Amino acid sequence: MTITIGYIGLGIMGRPMALNLLQAGYSLRVWARRKASLDPLLRAGAKACDSIAELARECNIVFLNVSDTRDVETLVLGDDSLGQHLHPGSVVVDHSTIDPAAARHINARLAEREVGMLDAPVSGGETGAIAGTLSIMVGGETPVFERVVRLLRVVGDNIVHVGGPGAGQLCKACNQIVVAQTIAAVAEAFVLCEASGVDATKVREALLGGFASSRILDVHGQRMLDHDYQPGFKALLHQKDLGIALNAAAEVGVALPGAAQAAQWVNALVGSGGGELDSAAIADVLRRLNGMVRE
Amino acid sequence: MTITIGYIGLGIMGRPMALNLLQAGYSLRVWARRKASLDPLLRAGAKACDSIAELARECNIVFLNVSDTRDVETLVLGDDSLGQHLHPGSVVVDHSTIDPAAARHINARLAEREVGMLDAPVSGGETGAIAGTLSIMVGGETPVFERVVRLLRVVGDNIVHVGGPGAGQLCKACNQIVVAQTIAAVAEAFVLCEASGVDATKVREALLGGFASSRILDVHGQRMLDHDYQPGFKALLHQKDLGIALNAAAEVGVALPGAAQAAQWVNALVGSGGGELDSAAIADVLRRLNGMVRE
Repeated sequence: MTITIGYIGLGIMGRPMALNLLQAGYSLRVWARRKASLDPLLRAGAKACDSIAELARECNIVFLNVSDTRDVETLVLGDDSLGQHLHPGSVVVDHSTIDPAAARHINARLAEREVGMLDAPVSGGETGAIAGTLSIMVGGETPVFERVVRLLRVVGDNIVHVGGPGAGQLCKACNQIVVAQTIAAVAEAFVLCEASGVDATKVREALLGGFASSRILDVHGQRMLDHDYQPGFKALLHQKDLGIALNAAAEVGVALPGAAQAAQWVNALVGSGGGELDSAAIADVLRRLNGMVRE
Repeated sequence: MTITIGYIGLGIMGRPMALNLLQAGYSLRVWARRKASLDPLLRAGAKACDSIAELARECNIVFLNVSDTRDVETLVLGDDSLGQHLHPGSVVVDHSTIDPAAARHINARLAEREVGMLDAPVSGGETGAIAGTLSIMVGGETPVFERVVRLLRVVGDNIVHVGGPGAGQLCKACNQIVVAQTIAAVAEAFVLCEASGVDATKVREALLGGFASSRILDVHGQRMLDHDYQPGFKALLHQKDLGIALNAAAEVGVALPGAAQAAQWVNALVGSGGGELDSAAIADVLRRLNGMVRE
């Protein structure tokens, strides 16, 4: 069967991921509310659709890469949506980060129409999206996973089929609580250094050689030292994702005190006008808490 | 000048580190309160001293690798101590993890007798000590550092001269608060998985490919999944080290809310009889908190 790919959500992550699919030789249809966001894809050979319905009818695999749970629900289950127009046997691959329970619900509703669905949120940022080296956390039925895994390999290099519907989103929630807490931990270490007159640059270097080593210490640690908070990953999105994680925890009745505390720093960052900054700017929240920031 | 090395503190870490110095061809004198702890070193060619005074008089570089601040103070500044018997121009290298302020104080007292001192705590565990691949965080004066750096290279492969006296200890305090918080973060993620019916093994695998990746997720994460808490690094020692870090923070008037919370999990672990377990067992504290542990 010829694969025709539909792509909706051509932002910081979706655009390079869709371009990688095009460059791998796949035929691509795109639709967007803001037509200007289609331009880079159309220049690269994608075909624009006038409506979601048209895209749904012309494609058998549709990728979504949008901002939140509501967007995905509207695109898949709303009026004139993918769910109404996709052919039986088609697959929706949702790269958005949304609520795991919502992902399970959407999956079940599509299954009623014999449309497969994978929740497939990613980690690795814009850099990973451009390089095609994302980590992809997949939830969904095995036959559906097997049908699209070679497409996932075009955009990622660490593809893990975590479990059934929603498991990919739950995994992403875990990713976000670990990332937030690791950022906060590194920030605390640097604040302690700065208050003690010890060179945090040297401390980062030393810690990278031992058990405290992490990708966050490496990448976000450097951002903190440089006071360079160009995203990367915006605090506003991290705030949204921590909300998803803490809701998912509340749903199964699990206390996550560390994640809850890290979420407070992200709230303070967003509340103080830093929503568009990389969440490494949590360091400045902790510096401010301790009276150490040049305002 | 011929180097004669003295070594005090031949435990889990000190023994393999001293053996690596011997095997590199250095002449080694050892002393211990418990004579049995000398045996592996004597068999490998070290010479036993009858007293600290004898060791001090025969050596020009003395390594310490003991449990806490009090031990180091007694060995260096107490009655019949190293401080009284070392020749001017000698150097004490303290691999113990102690209070940064105490390290500065001991350094100053030795300087009065023209004895150099480095605080040089390590990270990397028993495995790193045996392999000679420790990370060593060094505080002290540059000429002293330069005099002994080739000996440090025998036992470690990431040697960072962090700053002046005490900076090595402050760096180690940073290491321990990052390690504790990263363990707690990974534990929270796994608890959320387990309560949600998602395979934490798969989640670990997926997270290792993205920004949540850390040495803790890799090594301690596996221990948590295996419920295998053989140390590694004992919770009792981690508790001590977090006490040092939080004291150091209090001294400069810095709030470290994440480190303080992680210290509570370690307290609970030690208090519930897990002091001899690896601190990865924080996962069981969080499982217990959430009613998820087989008692």
